[in-house]
Amino acid sequence: MRLYSYWRSTAAYRVRITLNMKGVAYETMPVDLVADGGQQHAADYTALNPSHLVPTLVLEDGTALTQSLAIVEYLDITHPEPPLLPADPIQRARVKAAALVIAADMHPVNNLRVMQHLGAKFGATPDDKAEWMRHWMRSGFDALLQMVDSDTRFAFGDTPGFADICLTAQYYNARRWGLDLDPYTRLTEIEQNCLALPAFEAATPENQPDAT
Amino acid sequence: MRLYSYWRSTAAYRVRITLNMKGVAYETMPVDLVADGGQQHAADYTALNPSHLVPTLVLEDGTALTQSLAIVEYLDITHPEPPLLPADPIQRARVKAAALVIAADMHPVNNLRVMQHLGAKFGATPDDKAEWMRHWMRSGFDALLQMVDSDTRFAFGDTPGFADICLTAQYYNARRWGLDLDPYTRLTEIEQNCLALPAFEAATPENQPDAT
Repeated sequence: MRLYSYWRSTAAYRVRITLNMKGVAYETMPVDLVADGGQQHAADYTALNPSHLVPTLVLEDGTALTQSLAIVEYLDITHPEPPLLPADPIQRARVKAAALVIAADMHPVNNLRVMQHLGAKFGATPDDKAEWMRHWMRSGFDALLQMVDSDTRFAFGDTPGFADICLTAQYYNARRWGLDLDPYTRLTEIEQNCLALPAFEAATPENQPDAT
Repeated sequence: MRLYSYWRSTAAYRVRITLNMKGVAYETMPVDLVADGGQQHAADYTALNPSHLVPTLVLEDGTALTQSLAIVEYLDITHPEPPLLPADPIQRARVKAAALVIAADMHPVNNLRVMQHLGAKFGATPDDKAEWMRHWMRSGFDALLQMVDSDTRFAFGDTPGFADICLTAQYYNARRWGLDLDPYTRLTEIEQNCLALPAFEAATPENQPDAT
């Protein structure tokens, strides 16, 4: 498989963790979101991903899959071990809801293209953009604190799964943009337990071939 | 079941369509997102939904489920007919990706609270906000046009499913905010085929008890 990825993209980071957890070998195809006006806008890439976003996972047969959560679920179905979601429907919905707080309510509002649009339309400064991002991260993490298990190794239970993948990737952004993590010791504990695992560690932005 | 809903929320609209498709009876619990500074911020509601967002589905046993996509999937698992997702993993990932273009890339960036924050932080006018929303809708619909099937009754195949639910709800917003739909005749055709179905029609904002 080929993963079109950018080292700092937290959406690509989710898929990298998943591929590592499932033991799926893949080739990294770097897409530099900032060089050359953004390589995600190149015609040969948008033919694979019409949203002009990373990640894209290209399967052995050439099928291009987009949207990180759809890709993570595809890998979870086709490579069932270790499972990333509980079988019980209510527990599954709880895990999915926590993941969506990050993947729907936090990440898209803080995405690079939204930051660029804020600058172009409203003259947002770098400080304005950083504060915008921290605002939505606080809002999301405040909710997450109420949603995750309180006394487990990972977000839900003692094995890492769907929510942990999203949380660990989002934490990279939180640290990058200087979010005060003091109110979130429980979430930080989960992140640290995740990063202690080789599958997570190998997926970190710093460990990618395109990291600069 | 009790559905905490706001008539104009497209996330709540997705769950209303799903409940109707699955033939699940429910009671609407209106949460007025604009009156009283937003009833979604009331303590008795945030105890159910710590994200201060609609919808929330409260099950017979009192369990509160949040995040529309997690709720739709819960209902699809617990009430399998009619199925909202294909069984084939690749087809399933394609449908999920299309739904996520709407539910992750378009809707959260255009959410009421983001519009309020744009006004408070950058002095965005009503016209600025409407143009912001149309910008992200064009971006998402441009991608969707490349993702859906081209010659079927619904977005993927001839039965309505996960992507159609998200598309129909998003179309309400597109019409509300004056998006030029001329470039999207294929998406409009899908929306019209959906709205011809009683399950979709009964879920429209106009047909809700809290519509004003």
